[in-house]
Amino acid sequence: MTSSHREANFYAVIPAGGVGSRLWPLSRADAPKFLHDLTGSGRSLLVETWDRLEPIAGDNIVVVCGKSHAKAIAHELPMLAADNTVLEPSPKDSTAAIVLAAAILVRRNPDAIIGSFAADHVIDDQRRFITAVNEAIATASAGFIVTIGIRPTSPSTAFGYIESGEALDVTGARRAHRVVRFVEKPSLDKATEYVEGDTHLWNAGMFIAKASVLLEELRANRPDVAGPIDEIADAWNTPERSAVLERVWPTIPKVAIDYSIAEPAAEHGRLAVIPGDFQWDDVGDFASLARLHTNGRANVLATLGENTRVLNQGSSGVVVSHTKRLISLIGVKDIVVVDTPDALLVTTAAHAQRVKDIVEQIRQSGDDALL
Amino acid sequence: MTSSHREANFYAVIPAGGVGSRLWPLSRADAPKFLHDLTGSGRSLLVETWDRLEPIAGDNIVVVCGKSHAKAIAHELPMLAADNTVLEPSPKDSTAAIVLAAAILVRRNPDAIIGSFAADHVIDDQRRFITAVNEAIATASAGFIVTIGIRPTSPSTAFGYIESGEALDVTGARRAHRVVRFVEKPSLDKATEYVEGDTHLWNAGMFIAKASVLLEELRANRPDVAGPIDEIADAWNTPERSAVLERVWPTIPKVAIDYSIAEPAAEHGRLAVIPGDFQWDDVGDFASLARLHTNGRANVLATLGENTRVLNQGSSGVVVSHTKRLISLIGVKDIVVVDTPDALLVTTAAHAQRVKDIVEQIRQSGDDALL
Repeated sequence: MTSSHREANFYAVIPAGGVGSRLWPLSRADAPKFLHDLTGSGRSLLVETWDRLEPIAGDNIVVVCGKSHAKAIAHELPMLAADNTVLEPSPKDSTAAIVLAAAILVRRNPDAIIGSFAADHVIDDQRRFITAVNEAIATASAGFIVTIGIRPTSPSTAFGYIESGEALDVTGARRAHRVVRFVEKPSLDKATEYVEGDTHLWNAGMFIAKASVLLEELRANRPDVAGPIDEIADAWNTPERSAVLERVWPTIPKVAIDYSIAEPAAEHGRLAVIPGDFQWDDVGDFASLARLHTNGRANVLATLGENTRVLNQGSSGVVVSHTKRLISLIGVKDIVVVDTPDALLVTTAAHAQRVKDIVEQIRQSGDDALL
Repeated sequence: MTSSHREANFYAVIPAGGVGSRLWPLSRADAPKFLHDLTGSGRSLLVETWDRLEPIAGDNIVVVCGKSHAKAIAHELPMLAADNTVLEPSPKDSTAAIVLAAAILVRRNPDAIIGSFAADHVIDDQRRFITAVNEAIATASAGFIVTIGIRPTSPSTAFGYIESGEALDVTGARRAHRVVRFVEKPSLDKATEYVEGDTHLWNAGMFIAKASVLLEELRANRPDVAGPIDEIADAWNTPERSAVLERVWPTIPKVAIDYSIAEPAAEHGRLAVIPGDFQWDDVGDFASLARLHTNGRANVLATLGENTRVLNQGSSGVVVSHTKRLISLIGVKDIVVVDTPDALLVTTAAHAQRVKDIVEQIRQSGDDALL
């Protein structure tokens, strides 16, 4: 908690989509990444996300999720109001998820400012996170679309980068800069340059803006996406919601908010960035999970899971267990062992990205129960 | 099968003792190594041993085992006569097991020749094995205690060696030589010399001798062991068997037959050796098991187990599964994965010998259900 003033018009939006297939067999269709405790806190990433946003947004937190996860999410978040739950009939990528929430909220409160934060990321400095969000809200109030870019701590080639430009003169946001452009996942050389300089930040997919500004930008760039979303939002608080949703939702094109809103806004000079000086990780794969739990120290074996029993002789890496089996490791370095009742994964941190190939192989074999 | 004459006085003895703790968690106290199919033949090592000996010994096969395995062994070997089953009240090492069988058999047939063969070794050339055993039987008939030494195919430092000396002039055993001495597990340099020369053979623990000669040798060397064994054998076919066994067995000192009989016999010039030109493996650990199934080829992943399901991307080594779980391996080299319902082992071939340390750790923790 901080003593900072709370912006009454601010709404946090948590899009809880995406299975996290590089975390298979831990992440499954019916138990996606955001429902797991990946930090050892005893709370799922979703609950951690809620707890991180609650001091800023109070009860104004909207969760957008797939129908099939509604029950699990209600169980995780008993404080989540039915009104603030947006159920997607099918996954339509981030633009549809976030902008539908914005369109519903702007009809509830024309001055709504929304901030969108993934349900399955890890952030470790709550105070600095809140400071950055508050600066982003101040910048959004001034009419900008705002992202929070993470100051890189390593030359990661797994993340996209944001190049920040001139400082903006915004009250309450002394660190706000205009975004010059987005840079896709760079080469190691480029990434090393970025870490050494101070103009490039990791794109963590956090967007803060007035709901009206967001919609305006989408209507200008992608009327084919904005149109059906407006149609659904108009029907949201009427008896027609289900019928309209069922008819219109399938017609929405799938597009990431980076392409539909953020990049065009950057081109138009309407995108601002606040640097985030906190530890952030998208825990995208088991290498990332291992790094998170060993703090990058070699020769450490991290273990996750409520009943995990490990006998280790000279191994390092990470063991995740959802069984009660005794797991014995001897002399295996940077190992990744994920032990679940119906599937076992053994790989090394270096091959963590290839887990999605295994998932694809299972998908093709039609063995959906394992996905 | 061969067309060779079968020696009517020959009895095969199979001591089925030893858990095989370097094969944990596959081998367990209640499911020791010899009860497992480690070759993929669909038969346990015990049944393979029986099938290998049956053409030479017919029904004259005696199994010596612990009480707790009697039921499993009867299930594996329905053809084993009750008369030919010797149940040990507790493990007393190889001298007691083999010589008790010899002492019982010599009272049944004073001309009995016995050959002792471990229940849990792998031999792949049946014809050459039979030829070697027949030469050993001929040499035993001439009064020698005989061992079959395996011609080394690699400079193994895990086996003991037998140094063979002068050729013996025995009818029916043109390859019989006198044993000069036993050599304990050698250094790699020594082992390399042995492979290149032709006087050193692996000690595979196979002993063939007249039962009377074996007993005589033991009585001379270790009367403290021979005395109680003779006492039990005298009572074997009387109503006193149980009472005598129960009273006398616990007093028998534990000693390996190598020390009580073979080494002293070699010193006295009474030990002969027949070279075995067949593939032999004691499958002592998972490195050995992997070697057996990959034929030493790199980049091969061997899988064992009836329902084993493996998805592999670029891994090598061995997977043994006693579960129905999907096992996914990505980019792990020379890996050993052993998957059982209550315990999982992950190591590499290079660390295979250290499995017994894990077993010791579990023993000390008192978690006997896992042993």
